[in-house]
Amino acid sequence: MEAYEAIVTRRSVRQFEEKPVPREMVEKLLRAAMMAPSAGNQQPWEFIVLTERSLLDEMPSLHPYCQMIRQTPVAVLVCGNTQREKHTGYWPQDCSAAIMNLLLAAHAMGLGAVWTGIFPRDERVEAIKKRFNLPEHVMPLALIPIGWPAEKPPQPERWAPERVHYNGW
Amino acid sequence: MEAYEAIVTRRSVRQFEEKPVPREMVEKLLRAAMMAPSAGNQQPWEFIVLTERSLLDEMPSLHPYCQMIRQTPVAVLVCGNTQREKHTGYWPQDCSAAIMNLLLAAHAMGLGAVWTGIFPRDERVEAIKKRFNLPEHVMPLALIPIGWPAEKPPQPERWAPERVHYNGW
Repeated sequence: MEAYEAIVTRRSVRQFEEKPVPREMVEKLLRAAMMAPSAGNQQPWEFIVLTERSLLDEMPSLHPYCQMIRQTPVAVLVCGNTQREKHTGYWPQDCSAAIMNLLLAAHAMGLGAVWTGIFPRDERVEAIKKRFNLPEHVMPLALIPIGWPAEKPPQPERWAPERVHYNGW
Repeated sequence: MEAYEAIVTRRSVRQFEEKPVPREMVEKLLRAAMMAPSAGNQQPWEFIVLTERSLLDEMPSLHPYCQMIRQTPVAVLVCGNTQREKHTGYWPQDCSAAIMNLLLAAHAMGLGAVWTGIFPRDERVEAIKKRFNLPEHVMPLALIPIGWPAEKPPQPERWAPERVHYNGW
């Protein structure tokens, strides 16, 4: 798929086929994520790949907006490692760039995925840190269920010229 | 350019040719940015496009790490509009996803760009808010100088398997 087309046709997918995603595909997605830019090239990301059915099914008890994970064979819990930061406070931006790469790579490979937010909701952050025994310096940012799409969401027009300002506010 | 290739070959570009970037290309980049996902589809972004030479040249006095903007014919100041948030606190992630789309679209179109961070550095945020008379609810996140590349940065290997954890930390 052509790059620009991938960017403008990618949508959040929330309905999935019952079909496995090979580990090599997951690692290809993570390779794409790791090619994101980051502040001072600090690459402060950590990826917890969930493939165990019981663990995937448990996630909605820790995160209220990830019900679709019950349908996906895999999910990636994207975390920021604040000990890897040279430039403090940039890890949410760095990890968000990595997630966008992952979502686009998934779409280009025929997969579907959806970004479900964790940080900065303290209750979700704490529940997930506790469940996974994450060290204090590892912060869960988002949970990304991934699978084979069983829906083709519509393509909305999102171009909003009123959000574009030339040479001033 | 193929989407996955664009993702893994994109690099930050900091040397530029003296050559204009047509307005239609800039708007194509912003269209890509606006196709990013956002929390609750709130799309809390605003884009200030800088094309005036004097304004571009002034930016390094407000932001210590954007010297390359002196070489670029255009730059995009990406801001978050907190009044557009339904889910508070997600605007930096939403705008970071939009920036990643913009950077990938630029690369796929043969342009070069670099993400220079503003938020959460208070001194940069305040200097830029003041210079552009931004309302209290409009927060500058990053400044993205854009132009035609005059360098081809090396392609590093960033795959780090130690950042990948299966089913636990």
